[in-house]
Amino acid sequence: MKREKREREKVYIYGKHALHEALRYAPQVLRKVFLSAEVAKDKELQNLLRQQKVPFEVMEKRGASRMVGEDTSHQGVIAIADTSSLVLDFKDFLAALQPDETTLLVLMDELNDPHNVGAIIRSAAAFGAAGVLMPSHNQTPITGSVVKSSAGMAFRVPLVSIGNVNYTLGLLQEAGFKAYALAMSGSKSISKVLFDAPSVFVVGNESTGIRQKTFEQCDEIIRIPMHPRCESLNASVSAAVVLYQWSVQHPQSLKAAQGK
Amino acid sequence: MKREKREREKVYIYGKHALHEALRYAPQVLRKVFLSAEVAKDKELQNLLRQQKVPFEVMEKRGASRMVGEDTSHQGVIAIADTSSLVLDFKDFLAALQPDETTLLVLMDELNDPHNVGAIIRSAAAFGAAGVLMPSHNQTPITGSVVKSSAGMAFRVPLVSIGNVNYTLGLLQEAGFKAYALAMSGSKSISKVLFDAPSVFVVGNESTGIRQKTFEQCDEIIRIPMHPRCESLNASVSAAVVLYQWSVQHPQSLKAAQGK
Repeated sequence: MKREKREREKVYIYGKHALHEALRYAPQVLRKVFLSAEVAKDKELQNLLRQQKVPFEVMEKRGASRMVGEDTSHQGVIAIADTSSLVLDFKDFLAALQPDETTLLVLMDELNDPHNVGAIIRSAAAFGAAGVLMPSHNQTPITGSVVKSSAGMAFRVPLVSIGNVNYTLGLLQEAGFKAYALAMSGSKSISKVLFDAPSVFVVGNESTGIRQKTFEQCDEIIRIPMHPRCESLNASVSAAVVLYQWSVQHPQSLKAAQGK
Repeated sequence: MKREKREREKVYIYGKHALHEALRYAPQVLRKVFLSAEVAKDKELQNLLRQQKVPFEVMEKRGASRMVGEDTSHQGVIAIADTSSLVLDFKDFLAALQPDETTLLVLMDELNDPHNVGAIIRSAAAFGAAGVLMPSHNQTPITGSVVKSSAGMAFRVPLVSIGNVNYTLGLLQEAGFKAYALAMSGSKSISKVLFDAPSVFVVGNESTGIRQKTFEQCDEIIRIPMHPRCESLNASVSAAVVLYQWSVQHPQSLKAAQGK
């Protein structure tokens, strides 16, 4: 019942770029599109929506505010979406994966801030990740704000729903992955690690970090070297830096053929 | 007149961590502190405030909302601050600087998003920057939201007010700096650049990027290699990645003696 209810929940996606990315890479998520009178004049967009059989109508300014609030910069484009169809089942994802040392996964360990979730999806796309793993509980799902922060990349990087984090890491390790936890307490600097196996990076919750049991499950705890005046970095910044460092060792993963 | 007016404008700083960083590293910015009844019981905090001669009083919930809005997580701590005293004059800053190849500066080229401005200050602190340069016009100043996003690092990294961006870069180049513009169109990957001189990195505006004249003023245009599915990275994420890459070449800049 609960799952059914969640699937029926509305997610508002907004902004021209997000709509175009959705139409191109994940049209199945779009339920209905609302356009301002100005944007609705765009014949090319009208044709695209008709081709993909997405119903659309003209909205008034007040209607837009009711949907996404007054402060949201929607550029005259709001879509009702069902993002649950974006998210893959972990077992199916793993069965189809043929991991080698150029395979990179990011596992979000119960992140709460939609801006962080979106930014990490965007960085995962940029640095060649084959997928982003997200717990189905205690984790911000794919909301409109996540899609916006991902700059539409939520439609292009495989997103995978997982259950228990440690159990998932165990299955990935059986499939040949090395699991890396990112933490200030890490013993090894990320610039000294040789990423010579399929890699999964665990990014911890913004306040509480990574849990002890998850540290124990990981193969290595790695850290970003930094000046002692600074206690930590933002979760999405840390993730981007380690993904970048990984990509420097695996330039072939930045070729178009990799990932989606 | 205008400058005088800006200096008298109130900036609200909020959150326990931000207040403690301000008390420790920049008490001169604090004009008055408001504490919830609960937080006001903290004798240690009371003593600290008295030592630094910062007036404080107990606030009601409604008063807090009036100052920083209902949705701001202030943890029962709000301070009125004058952040203009944080910001150094460029000429004074440059005169006191003895640049060598471990000297790193970040120049924000008219950034608008306070979260980006704060996050870049935080990353600059983490990766050993000697200062963050900010135009006095068309650039988000040091607001409460910037301080919050910087995790208090706005009080620890020298912040420097500049006038014209290209003129400033010229003065830095005369002082031996190499100026690097970060852009997708860059011809050289950041992982291939040898940062063998004092370095200043220019981070462009979120929407419009770096202006043509500024590109022409810079010594090199460098890029972060990324997967073609991704058009760009968030400004603060790009900045963090390039600052990290610089710090890998200059581990000595992460020692406590460097910077503030």
